[in-house]
Amino acid sequence: MKQVTVGIDIGGTNTVVGVVNKEGDVLVRDSISTPQHGDVDQYVKDIKTTVNKLIEQLQPKREVLGIGIGAPNGNYYRGTIEEAPNLSFKGVVPLVDLLKAEFPEMKAIALTNDANAATLGEMIYGGAQNMKNFVMYTLGTGVGSGIVANGDLIYGKDGFAGECGHNMLIPNGRTCGCGINGHLEAYCSAPGMKRTAFELLAHYNDNESPLAKKSFQDLTSKDIYEAAIAGDAVAKEVFEVTGEYLGMGMASTVHTTSPEAIFLFGGPTAAGDLIIEPTQKSLDQFLLPIFKGTVPIKISELNLGDAAIVGASSLVMKEVTKM
Amino acid sequence: MKQVTVGIDIGGTNTVVGVVNKEGDVLVRDSISTPQHGDVDQYVKDIKTTVNKLIEQLQPKREVLGIGIGAPNGNYYRGTIEEAPNLSFKGVVPLVDLLKAEFPEMKAIALTNDANAATLGEMIYGGAQNMKNFVMYTLGTGVGSGIVANGDLIYGKDGFAGECGHNMLIPNGRTCGCGINGHLEAYCSAPGMKRTAFELLAHYNDNESPLAKKSFQDLTSKDIYEAAIAGDAVAKEVFEVTGEYLGMGMASTVHTTSPEAIFLFGGPTAAGDLIIEPTQKSLDQFLLPIFKGTVPIKISELNLGDAAIVGASSLVMKEVTKM
Repeated sequence: MKQVTVGIDIGGTNTVVGVVNKEGDVLVRDSISTPQHGDVDQYVKDIKTTVNKLIEQLQPKREVLGIGIGAPNGNYYRGTIEEAPNLSFKGVVPLVDLLKAEFPEMKAIALTNDANAATLGEMIYGGAQNMKNFVMYTLGTGVGSGIVANGDLIYGKDGFAGECGHNMLIPNGRTCGCGINGHLEAYCSAPGMKRTAFELLAHYNDNESPLAKKSFQDLTSKDIYEAAIAGDAVAKEVFEVTGEYLGMGMASTVHTTSPEAIFLFGGPTAAGDLIIEPTQKSLDQFLLPIFKGTVPIKISELNLGDAAIVGASSLVMKEVTKM
Repeated sequence: MKQVTVGIDIGGTNTVVGVVNKEGDVLVRDSISTPQHGDVDQYVKDIKTTVNKLIEQLQPKREVLGIGIGAPNGNYYRGTIEEAPNLSFKGVVPLVDLLKAEFPEMKAIALTNDANAATLGEMIYGGAQNMKNFVMYTLGTGVGSGIVANGDLIYGKDGFAGECGHNMLIPNGRTCGCGINGHLEAYCSAPGMKRTAFELLAHYNDNESPLAKKSFQDLTSKDIYEAAIAGDAVAKEVFEVTGEYLGMGMASTVHTTSPEAIFLFGGPTAAGDLIIEPTQKSLDQFLLPIFKGTVPIKISELNLGDAAIVGASSLVMKEVTKM
C-alpha cells in the first residue's frame, strides 16, 4: 500500500487539513474554522472528523504514516502551542498529546512552528532536497526563519530556534511587534514594506504616487507590488530598500551557519527579481570575502497555497522514514 | 594502553604542540617557531620531530589516537589553512594531507579554526559537556565564534560557519579589519575595547584617567582592565559599553540557534563580572520574551594557556571516539 502523511496548517482563522503523498502532492484537502473562543476539546474533535473523512476519500486506500502540524508558536519538543498571540487558546495547548489520544494507530504525530514546517517542506519536497546546510526566510505578517545545519533543522534547547526576524537590524530603529526597537521584521515583513513606503512618501513628498492614495491602514504589500510593476518610482524603491535591509540581515545568518543557499518564502516573493535582486546585491555587499558570491537567494519551490500543509506533513515524513 | 591525542595550536609566531589525555590534561608540551617565510616543508618536518619527541617522553607508553590542529582560517572539510592573514604561508596549505604522509599510523588527523577548536574543547572537556546546543564567543585580537546545534559543531557548506564576529552590529559604524563597517568585532575585540576607550576619552575630555597617558598604539585591553580595577570611571565604562555591544550581538545568535548557554573565551574574560554582568544585562534586554533569562553567559572552563592545544586535540577525540 502506498504511504501518505496528513498535514495540518493552523492559521488564525482557518485550519487546513490535507493528505500528502511522498512526492509532496496534496491528494485531498479540507478546512475547518480555528476556534475563536479557545475551545480546544471541540477543535480536536473537528480535526479528528476531518482527518478521518479525508482518509476515507482516498482511492485506492493508503497507509497513513502520521500527522504533522504547523502552528504559530508551535513547540516541537513539547508538541505544544504556547501563548500564540493570533490564536484564541490561552496558555499552553498540548495538541500532540490530545491528538495522540484520538489517533492511537498513527506512528507519529508532531508539531512545529510555521517557518520550521516550511523549511522542512523545502528540504523534503522542494529546492533544498540535496542540501545539508541551508536557510529559509519566510516573509509575511512577520518574518520567520528556519535553519538547517548538518542535515537537521535546528530547534535549539527549547524548540524556539530560528527567530531571525527578531535579529537586531537598526539599533534604536523602528518598533517591532515584539516591543524591541530595530528588528529585521519591522523592516522586511509585509507591514515593514508598508512602513518603508510611508517613509519614502514622506521623504519625497510625492503626491503623484499611486501609494499616496491609500491610508496607512489600507495600504498592502500587494498594492506596492502592483504600483512597482506599473513603474511607480516610490514603489520600486520600497523593494530596493527592503532588499537592502533583508540582505544586510541575512549576511549575519550566513556568517553564523554558512548555508548553501537562502530560500525566500511567502507572499512578497511573488515580486520575483524585484525583491531578489536587491537582496542578493545587499547580501554580497555585507558578506565576508570568503562568502561573497557563494550563497544564492532562491525563491521557495513549494507551491505557496499548499506549502503549509506540505511542510507540516514533511515533519512526519522525516520522522518516520528518517529521510 | 591508555589513549591520548596530540593537539597543535598554530599561532602567528609560535606553534605549540601538546599531548592530551582523555581528561583534557596536557601531559607534555613543546613549541616551535611558526615559519616567517612560508617554508611549509621544513615546518612539517619540525612538527614531525616535535610530535615524535613528545610521544617518546610519555611514561608509561600511550596509544596515540591522532593529531588535531587549530589554525587561523583552518578549513575542517579540506584540512587546509587558507589565505590566513597572520601566517606567512601563501594561498592554500594542505596541512592535513602533508601530515598524513608523515604519520601514516595515526587513525585521524584533522584541522579546524581556532574558535571551533576552543568550542569543541568546551564540549569535550569543559563547561559544555552535557550540552547539545551552545555557543562560544572568543574575544581577542578578533572575535571568533563556534556554534553547536543538535550535538554537533556547525561547519556549514564550506567549513567557515561561526564567523559571528563579522555580524553587523552598527550599520555604517566602525571600520572592521575585514573592510566592512560596523561589525561586532570592531566593537568587542581587544582592539575594539581600545577604540571605545578613545571614544570615551574624547567624549569626556578626561585628562586624569590613567588611560589618557597612553598612545593609541600603546594602550592595551590589559591596561583598561587594570585601570577599571583601580576604579577609573572611563575604564569601567569601556567594559559597560563593550558588554552592551556584545549582548546586543549575542541576542541575534540566540534568536538563530537558541543555545543553552553562551561561553566566553579569551584574555578579556579575565575581567570576570566586569564584562559578564553588562553583557548578560544587554543580552536579556535584546532577547525576545521567550528567551529572556534562559541563556546564561559563562566563562569558559578551559585553562586559557592550554585551551588551544586541548581544543585542537578534542577534534580528534570527537572523531575517533564519536563522543
